[in-house]
Amino acid sequence: MNSGENEMSEKWLAGIDIGGTSIKLAFFTETGELVHKWEIPTNKDNRGMAIISEVGDSVQSKLIELHGDVSPLVAAGVGAPGPVDTDKGLLFEAVNIGWQDNFPLRDLMQSALNVPVAIDNDANVAALGEMWKGAGKGSKDLICITLGTGVGGGIIYKGDIVHGSKGAAGEVGHITSVSNGGYMCNCGKTGCLETVASATGVVRTALDKLKVYDGESLLKPIVESSGTVTAKDVFDAAAKGDKLANEIVELLADYLGIALANSSAILNPEKIVIGGGVSKAGDILLTPLRAKYKKYAFKPIAENTEILLAELGNDAGIVGAAWLAANKIG
Amino acid sequence: MNSGENEMSEKWLAGIDIGGTSIKLAFFTETGELVHKWEIPTNKDNRGMAIISEVGDSVQSKLIELHGDVSPLVAAGVGAPGPVDTDKGLLFEAVNIGWQDNFPLRDLMQSALNVPVAIDNDANVAALGEMWKGAGKGSKDLICITLGTGVGGGIIYKGDIVHGSKGAAGEVGHITSVSNGGYMCNCGKTGCLETVASATGVVRTALDKLKVYDGESLLKPIVESSGTVTAKDVFDAAAKGDKLANEIVELLADYLGIALANSSAILNPEKIVIGGGVSKAGDILLTPLRAKYKKYAFKPIAENTEILLAELGNDAGIVGAAWLAANKIG
Repeated sequence: MNSGENEMSEKWLAGIDIGGTSIKLAFFTETGELVHKWEIPTNKDNRGMAIISEVGDSVQSKLIELHGDVSPLVAAGVGAPGPVDTDKGLLFEAVNIGWQDNFPLRDLMQSALNVPVAIDNDANVAALGEMWKGAGKGSKDLICITLGTGVGGGIIYKGDIVHGSKGAAGEVGHITSVSNGGYMCNCGKTGCLETVASATGVVRTALDKLKVYDGESLLKPIVESSGTVTAKDVFDAAAKGDKLANEIVELLADYLGIALANSSAILNPEKIVIGGGVSKAGDILLTPLRAKYKKYAFKPIAENTEILLAELGNDAGIVGAAWLAANKIG
Repeated sequence: MNSGENEMSEKWLAGIDIGGTSIKLAFFTETGELVHKWEIPTNKDNRGMAIISEVGDSVQSKLIELHGDVSPLVAAGVGAPGPVDTDKGLLFEAVNIGWQDNFPLRDLMQSALNVPVAIDNDANVAALGEMWKGAGKGSKDLICITLGTGVGGGIIYKGDIVHGSKGAAGEVGHITSVSNGGYMCNCGKTGCLETVASATGVVRTALDKLKVYDGESLLKPIVESSGTVTAKDVFDAAAKGDKLANEIVELLADYLGIALANSSAILNPEKIVIGGGVSKAGDILLTPLRAKYKKYAFKPIAENTEILLAELGNDAGIVGAAWLAANKIG
């Protein structure tokens, strides 16, 4: 090594997770150890036009604050809330933010950060995060599903995200769970897994069942006083042995179990990772879900697939974005 | 080129498709043009122990017959009727033939043929054949499904077969189509797609419906005279406008449509290729199937996925086996 190089020079990857409310940012070492993380609000004024420069300024300030100069940063990954053309670095649109018409996110970020950038969809980036440092660590074949306000997913095959022929692979939330009838989904069809397995879906199922349920339930006083229940109310009541709440959880587990079993018949994953707010229910959801999965999955697959809770929570996006920076550039 | 080499020397790939009744064999050029194909019966005596040497002898005789010596053969691919460990070249078992206990098919075939050999499951090999020279030509992301006595499948992603973490990917036939109840499947669970979408399944649905159907149907005299109907009888009657037969086809299209739409939500394939005996129904099946697929698939996927009939028929296996020889050796 010649004297012009510093053996101890650090190389950092930026992981950036752009959401509708806030932007999560972090620096990681090349092996994925967290150096520092922080957040800034998402400035949606003027159709999100200020976001790029605000991210660029924030990253630069943080580098100077932490290191005195910008030299450690070598690459960045970005997760964005919309469908992405990863090859061209375009975001088709991000309705939450206002970006549209094949927004050239990668090139704009590269200009703002002065390092090479790779981008992907936020659900895919979260899945990569769980593979790299979370519940999927050590696995290369994963189905990741996020049960939040909606239902998102990321499919990992041979250690990389499956994008499919038009970038729409991993749309686990739009598996049709109810073949005839079912609730209308935002996507325009009915009966999607998202309509029954998201937090919103759990609440809707609960309210529908409460309307016609004659028996006692811990959920009744809640809906009487507040006009609604939350998904958490349902899981809490189920944990206390409430019959109606357990019926709702059983139905959720049934829809999720068959969707994941049938996805597994196609892919034979090593692990299935469940994240998002609904997954905070923990064993109250996992126990019936594992039983339903075993019922519906092809036996050689059922015996060899682990169903696990996601481990990284809201950090999955920044970790996965850093994985992009480490693996998709060069 | 020195004088010791012959500019016109041919290089052939052997494609070998081992079935329970017959073994299909062929030579192809390296670009997949058929040179010659033939069949030999499957000798199941003594748990199939003679098959390897009979294939070896048959290939050698044919090379001498066609070329005067064995020099053209450079590699071979083999499709086998059972689950395969492609890396180790083992067949876990082939109940139809009698092979079991991790039968070392690849190494035995290499010894018999004196060229390098690659092996895979017969459904996967048929899918590769359709990708290389059939309905999937030019595509790299395919779902192939074979509707025969059973229902098999092969998933192609980025131009290669998806095996999954334990080699059980592509088990399309064991997607659970009927979540509660449903017919018992050979795999040990109930309600598999195979129980309703195979030729056997179509016949069973028809016989069940005929038992309770009060109206006129072209199928009634058939079942009265022969005791049963065939899947072809059902499609023929549907083509003539028979109401009951069309109900049976509609139900089949519904089960297939939702299974393929949900598989597409995971993979976003470019094409779906339908093969096997039931696919001979042609448009009588394809037209309602495309309508059901459109109903159940996520819109951006439905708009960009072609559903096509397989083109190679019984030759898909030898073509796909030759693809293995061309792409999986070296």
